[in-house]
Amino acid sequence: MLLLIPGPVQTRPDVRAAMAVDIAPWDNDFKARYAAIRDTVRDIAGGVAGEHACLPLQGAGHFITEAAIRTFVPAGRKLLVVMNGSYAERMARLAREAGREVVALAVPDFRSVTPGEVADALAADPAIGHVGVVYSETGSGIVNDVVALGAAVRAAGRRMIVDAVSAFGALPFDLKAQPEVDAVVFTSNKCIEGLPGIAFAVSPIARVLECAGNAGSWSFDLSDVYATAMKAGWGSFRFTPPVQALHAFGVALDIFQKEGGQPARLARYRENARLLHEGVQALGMRPYLDWAHQGPIIVTVHQPADPAFTLLDFVERLKKHGVLISNFHNTPVPSLRIGCIGDVHADDIRFALCAIGTVLDEMGVARRQAA
Amino acid sequence: MLLLIPGPVQTRPDVRAAMAVDIAPWDNDFKARYAAIRDTVRDIAGGVAGEHACLPLQGAGHFITEAAIRTFVPAGRKLLVVMNGSYAERMARLAREAGREVVALAVPDFRSVTPGEVADALAADPAIGHVGVVYSETGSGIVNDVVALGAAVRAAGRRMIVDAVSAFGALPFDLKAQPEVDAVVFTSNKCIEGLPGIAFAVSPIARVLECAGNAGSWSFDLSDVYATAMKAGWGSFRFTPPVQALHAFGVALDIFQKEGGQPARLARYRENARLLHEGVQALGMRPYLDWAHQGPIIVTVHQPADPAFTLLDFVERLKKHGVLISNFHNTPVPSLRIGCIGDVHADDIRFALCAIGTVLDEMGVARRQAA
Repeated sequence: MLLLIPGPVQTRPDVRAAMAVDIAPWDNDFKARYAAIRDTVRDIAGGVAGEHACLPLQGAGHFITEAAIRTFVPAGRKLLVVMNGSYAERMARLAREAGREVVALAVPDFRSVTPGEVADALAADPAIGHVGVVYSETGSGIVNDVVALGAAVRAAGRRMIVDAVSAFGALPFDLKAQPEVDAVVFTSNKCIEGLPGIAFAVSPIARVLECAGNAGSWSFDLSDVYATAMKAGWGSFRFTPPVQALHAFGVALDIFQKEGGQPARLARYRENARLLHEGVQALGMRPYLDWAHQGPIIVTVHQPADPAFTLLDFVERLKKHGVLISNFHNTPVPSLRIGCIGDVHADDIRFALCAIGTVLDEMGVARRQAA
Repeated sequence: MLLLIPGPVQTRPDVRAAMAVDIAPWDNDFKARYAAIRDTVRDIAGGVAGEHACLPLQGAGHFITEAAIRTFVPAGRKLLVVMNGSYAERMARLAREAGREVVALAVPDFRSVTPGEVADALAADPAIGHVGVVYSETGSGIVNDVVALGAAVRAAGRRMIVDAVSAFGALPFDLKAQPEVDAVVFTSNKCIEGLPGIAFAVSPIARVLECAGNAGSWSFDLSDVYATAMKAGWGSFRFTPPVQALHAFGVALDIFQKEGGQPARLARYRENARLLHEGVQALGMRPYLDWAHQGPIIVTVHQPADPAFTLLDFVERLKKHGVLISNFHNTPVPSLRIGCIGDVHADDIRFALCAIGTVLDEMGVARRQAA
């Protein structure tokens, strides 16, 4: 089965094989591996040894996002969230339920926010201390320009939390050039092409130390993750980690580096996205985003407006042809989501497009003429 | 390598092999497997279909414990924690940092709490609404009698949260006979012999519904786990689960059932514990607990009072003989921890005891005469 979903992604056999081992997480033999993972992650984030720390957390992307908000945004303080997709809505909900006040900056889900919109929102409310932004929105597939936004945030003297869950490793990020960023967060099972179970924040150590006591949750206190590592050593986990997922993530990082790191991965995903964006149009379907706003992580496509089409039927039929796409959508109008990430290459996309065409015909869905 | 640690445990090859697969968690093909896992877990907990729900949560045991406290103990309310081990201390810290008031019931870590101690503490403070207890303390190895405690809690009209992380599946539990219990919580990587990454609570549905809005954390809101499943269907996860760990847990549950379920597992672990408890004494070492208080999950042993002995040297040497035990201890005095759980059988324990004797001789550690 070819997984064309925005995570957990299709992985390579040697990454999966690294899951099938028993490991005692705190064993000395695992420490060097764990240290190398943390250093590599920090480097990919543009962090600097001694200035930035890689902070692992058990669980899902939502957990590391909540942890970053709790750790860096004090209780009762205001967080501006750039609302142009379903994962931004989730960030806002995580913040609100954690007792942080959310100011929502409404932006349509088919384009990036502009730095001016953020600057205006910050100027209008001096009580906002932080801006939360989703780098790559897997709701629609758009990408927000975190460098330009960061400059606006920096100019306004505020700080930023970047949800890079579906971006990290594919889209560039340079923490040392973005001193306004308190945390860039991501998970093991997206663009690094590992398996799910563990999440990471990369943060300035000075801020991690300053923010001790903010979290209101021991589990989600990233300052305590760091403090515990300083006290007990990095190989000593606060809580049992999903150590197989961590081990496999290390193998995935090795492959990532060998492939050429972030630029190579971005190029491969962008080519996948281009083939999909053109290919679905050739099949008479309409992409949700203009190419100018289309990110490289996921291509969202309007569902054909034909009563012969239902998403679940389409997904189940496509599976019989060996291709799995999401069986749900996150846009306000009916769409389907095709992932560009994972161990997926141009020929896989061509194969998937061929299968999609066959299934549309099987279902008797009328096709629009390509423009 | 033979893992003799109290989790993540030694697993069977077919359980580990189930980790090495790509799965889309929400895929229809995974739904039946996921449903069977939830039903089996509910049944092992003594839950009843339609009355009790199995609520999975991404992450570690500490996360599900925090989630249970947040969900069932309203903010600002009092939780009595039975403090006879390091995991009880952790439960108290999780509760305090989540803004719940903790009343600590001090009990030595070498014996169970008595129902009378709990009854007295509850009578002394009518503001206590809940009692939190660790079923099996992997700090020392003692077991608290949750049936007797539960009766005292019930008689006092209070409610109970049971941390069964290292007990579930080995020690008996019958939720339908303990209506005072709001949640029994555990993880995938202990006595069911799966891999780490996912945790579970089993709770009365009526209480889950009543407690909506308590959590103060979307991630840790077990009422929302249930509400989302009711709204979107059980195969639709709130957040990406560690689906490989879930898949392997399903295989581990099948093996658990074939082995004879909880009674068979308890018998195997108890025999492991008995062999260890006797065997270390035959080697001139002193168990931390009297046999009367010794649980079946972990045998804690005093470190030999000989300058030739250091824990790290001992652990590293033992590894060369193919046996891995914990390289840290959780008791107030220096001890070593040997796990009895996982895919570990009597012959494995005999092999480990032989290796321990060899290593003590290698290190030149003087042996006490067996009593």
